Amino acid sequence: MNRMRIEVYDTTLRDGAQQEGMNLSVADKVAIARLLDQLGMHVIEGGWPGAIPRDTQFFDRLRGEDILRRSQLAAFGATRKAGVRVQDDPQVRALLDSGAPLITLVAKSDIRHVERALRTDGEENLAMVRDTIEFLTSEGRQVLLDAEHFFDGYRFDPAYTRSVVQAAADVGARTVVLCDTNGGMLPQWVGEIVSDVADIGVQLGMHAHNDTGCAVANTIAAVQAGATHIQGTVNGYGERTGNADLLTCVANLQLKLGYDCLGEDLLQSTAVAHQISEVTNISPFARQPYVGASAFAHKAGLHASAIRIDPDLYQHIEPKAVGNDMRMLVSDMAGRASVELKARELGVDVSGRADVVARVTQRVKEAEARGYTYDAADASFELLLREERDGARPQFFEVESWRAQIEERSGALGENFAEATVKVFTPEGRIVRTGEGNGPVNALDKALREALLPAYPEIGVFELIDFKVRILDSEQGTDATIRVLIETTDGIRSWSTVGVGPDVIAASWEALTDSIVWGLLHSSRARERDPHFTVAAAL
Amino acid sequence: MNRMRIEVYDTTLRDGAQQEGMNLSVADKVAIARLLDQLGMHVIEGGWPGAIPRDTQFFDRLRGEDILRRSQLAAFGATRKAGVRVQDDPQVRALLDSGAPLITLVAKSDIRHVERALRTDGEENLAMVRDTIEFLTSEGRQVLLDAEHFFDGYRFDPAYTRSVVQAAADVGARTVVLCDTNGGMLPQWVGEIVSDVADIGVQLGMHAHNDTGCAVANTIAAVQAGATHIQGTVNGYGERTGNADLLTCVANLQLKLGYDCLGEDLLQSTAVAHQISEVTNISPFARQPYVGASAFAHKAGLHASAIRIDPDLYQHIEPKAVGNDMRMLVSDMAGRASVELKARELGVDVSGRADVVARVTQRVKEAEARGYTYDAADASFELLLREERDGARPQFFEVESWRAQIEERSGALGENFAEATVKVFTPEGRIVRTGEGNGPVNALDKALREALLPAYPEIGVFELIDFKVRILDSEQGTDATIRVLIETTDGIRSWSTVGVGPDVIAASWEALTDSIVWGLLHSSRARERDPHFTVAAAL
Repeated sequence: MNRMRIEVYDTTLRDGAQQEGMNLSVADKVAIARLLDQLGMHVIEGGWPGAIPRDTQFFDRLRGEDILRRSQLAAFGATRKAGVRVQDDPQVRALLDSGAPLITLVAKSDIRHVERALRTDGEENLAMVRDTIEFLTSEGRQVLLDAEHFFDGYRFDPAYTRSVVQAAADVGARTVVLCDTNGGMLPQWVGEIVSDVADIGVQLGMHAHNDTGCAVANTIAAVQAGATHIQGTVNGYGERTGNADLLTCVANLQLKLGYDCLGEDLLQSTAVAHQISEVTNISPFARQPYVGASAFAHKAGLHASAIRIDPDLYQHIEPKAVGNDMRMLVSDMAGRASVELKARELGVDVSGRADVVARVTQRVKEAEARGYTYDAADASFELLLREERDGARPQFFEVESWRAQIEERSGALGENFAEATVKVFTPEGRIVRTGEGNGPVNALDKALREALLPAYPEIGVFELIDFKVRILDSEQGTDATIRVLIETTDGIRSWSTVGVGPDVIAASWEALTDSIVWGLLHSSRARERDPHFTVAAAL
Repeated sequence: MNRMRIEVYDTTLRDGAQQEGMNLSVADKVAIARLLDQLGMHVIEGGWPGAIPRDTQFFDRLRGEDILRRSQLAAFGATRKAGVRVQDDPQVRALLDSGAPLITLVAKSDIRHVERALRTDGEENLAMVRDTIEFLTSEGRQVLLDAEHFFDGYRFDPAYTRSVVQAAADVGARTVVLCDTNGGMLPQWVGEIVSDVADIGVQLGMHAHNDTGCAVANTIAAVQAGATHIQGTVNGYGERTGNADLLTCVANLQLKLGYDCLGEDLLQSTAVAHQISEVTNISPFARQPYVGASAFAHKAGLHASAIRIDPDLYQHIEPKAVGNDMRMLVSDMAGRASVELKARELGVDVSGRADVVARVTQRVKEAEARGYTYDAADASFELLLREERDGARPQFFEVESWRAQIEERSGALGENFAEATVKVFTPEGRIVRTGEGNGPVNALDKALREALLPAYPEIGVFELIDFKVRILDSEQGTDATIRVLIETTDGIRSWSTVGVGPDVIAASWEALTDSIVWGLLHSSRARERDPHFTVAAAL
């Protein structure tokens, strides 16, 4: 183990924003910058001022306000244009105007790109690199050079590609970042090439894309070959297959190879990665290394007893090190041990209740055979667990009936029309409510909430945030069984429930009622509630 | 470049099925096996017969039917239990009963797991490995050994871990697969450790998990160190962060390092990966290397003209090599070409009709932005194409209105009740029919067929054989947009249609009506029909 420091440079706001379908406002960019700063990111690349108007505004905003407390800000831009004096290039001027203390210049380092895309020659390209770095450093900025297409260039013409790195080093570039712009490298090639240029005498960085699925490994190979600066994006956002997932790189370097990257701030990784996905509005990828919801989730029933005794035998790191948690998934492969473990995780005491555990295990198996799945529906599982432990399922209301209707007419009306009516008994009496919605489930959801609101005002803050439908046995056509998973939030936490039925509406109804019951059971007013409401008792 | 052959072993149906939220029926498993076989996968691991009832059924099904034409089938299971004669171990018996020619045995190779999880000693564990391999080979099966926790074991106690591999080699294991069960390895470690055991004289394989984001790189490192068998899953499915993405590994090995893996079948990668995600109903990951929708998508802007002239400067491989396409995110050039190609494929003549092609391209773009997808709905696409070519959409009936209703009552009735009414104009006049079903879509389907039967008796043989629902924008809760894909057959051929709407019933209605229109358009009695029926003309 060594404690060599690796500089961590985030380009979520610039290269990450190139991702298909991503569209960040200035406010979004500021929100992400705050989160990265809170994480102690060494450098935050904010964008390309002068080329992208929103990025210019972002730098204006950061110049005016005291937003970054821990991170350094970098502006991204190109070297001067061919045949233009650096002082006269408006885009170079915009980099100065951004006020960023660090400036990252992109330059071609593959002679084919110099000649065919820039349409200039190798010597002029070197002069563009030297002039721009000298000018910006003379203005008091630190300059990093992103050597674009470096690896492809090196494999084609090592001498020219090396000369670009050398030119930047000669005029005082702070760092030269070796870019696998097209993302086609494999770790062995990266290691060999970085070793080849490690003697140039400038800090080397690595910028990888994930086109071969090796962006993280390529970044590590570069560090092992001498790079001390890494670039990437949170959640691996970026064009095509994305950039190197920066927090995965950091976790590997820090927890497995002993480098010094973000220190104790690594503990915030999971939270920050998820908060950033809230800002980008891109659903988190459950299988993401280290920070994903499934990253430390275990399903295998066989091993559950062993995991309980010796968790370190079954996980590659302690999940807390990145702010994540081990989770046990309850599934049809689960045995009693995983039910017990899960009960403990949910805070439902079943210690010494082997009978309860046995019944729950049996019911889970039966339910899963009918299409239920509890590994993504903790809240429904908890209700089942409580039902078996307490002898009655928690319920805060009793349903007399519900119905939903959808209609479409051609001509005048021309639109779908959905309406639902629910009749329920609550502590406030028998209530009948009708809801309208853009679909029958939406209408039912509205009707049920309205019916329960008088008795349980906290339902007002419950909000459905995810709704997934799965057709089981889909070869049965419209006769298939349907499973619905929904996720609900009260603004503080979220919980998941499941419903199964012959159609999507009945399945949704089950998941909806479970979701409300769980929410009430855990609301701050839970003490005032009777979790085993019955009409008979109320009458 | 070398042409060394690498054996490709798919464990989507076994280890991939461990993924959180994945729940494959026997029919799903058969569908996936067919796709893998079509791709020429060398070995397909079907599951764990004797331990998981659905897997036992899957092997029964494959024994009875001639499903695999190109791939070999492997059954997965454990070595005999400690202290039990191998002949008396029912799980070993179940492996033989599966009928699979290859058997993959999992064995502990980390002494800590032997002692703490198996609760036996190192010698007995070696005996378990030897006995089980000898027994199964004496029964005419080829045996592969999955050395579980191999890398962690090797880093802790190389001598014991090596002895497990040696024991398997000594008694004639066909292959020993080195497993990074907890997924914590980095490529350098994998390379060093595989080199260390490469002298044992048995074919070595690699089984990687993606917990460090390095599963692909670890697989390649193992091959470069001497492994000639790789395991993984399509789309990287699997527990926690998933298994090595097998098609990414194959593409890297074959296209970049010159190994012989799947040969020309690699061209099917993109199609098969997407078809498998339709079966698992897990949305494809756009940023997936090689096969992802974004993998070769370029934001045009700056480099657009350069990319058009010199695409090889901007992409790491030719996308066609894996059956994918370069996409320019703001260009419709590719769009028109593929509309023309598709029209020709469907037998709808649009030659010399650039106006039609342009309008169809535009409508497809608009529709896809609203959630439609025509990749898996040729029949709906054909209707759109004919509408733009002929100036009117084919229709054999006009819908006045439809409605569906579902109701549930507690107590006496206690069951769901679904009913639908449709009112349509047909060549036989205005017809009103009500259908009942186990859900609203089923009820609508029945009502519509009954209403149309008098005019179009051939509808009697149309049958819905597949029905898939996907929620788009699922973070909108019950307000989300819903896409339905259905497949219909007339007993001779089958066709697919799509519907999109605010709820599953409206979306299903659209897909159902398209499906009937397409069926009538292609029925043997099509000549007797007017494909542009209108009420006005009928009156």
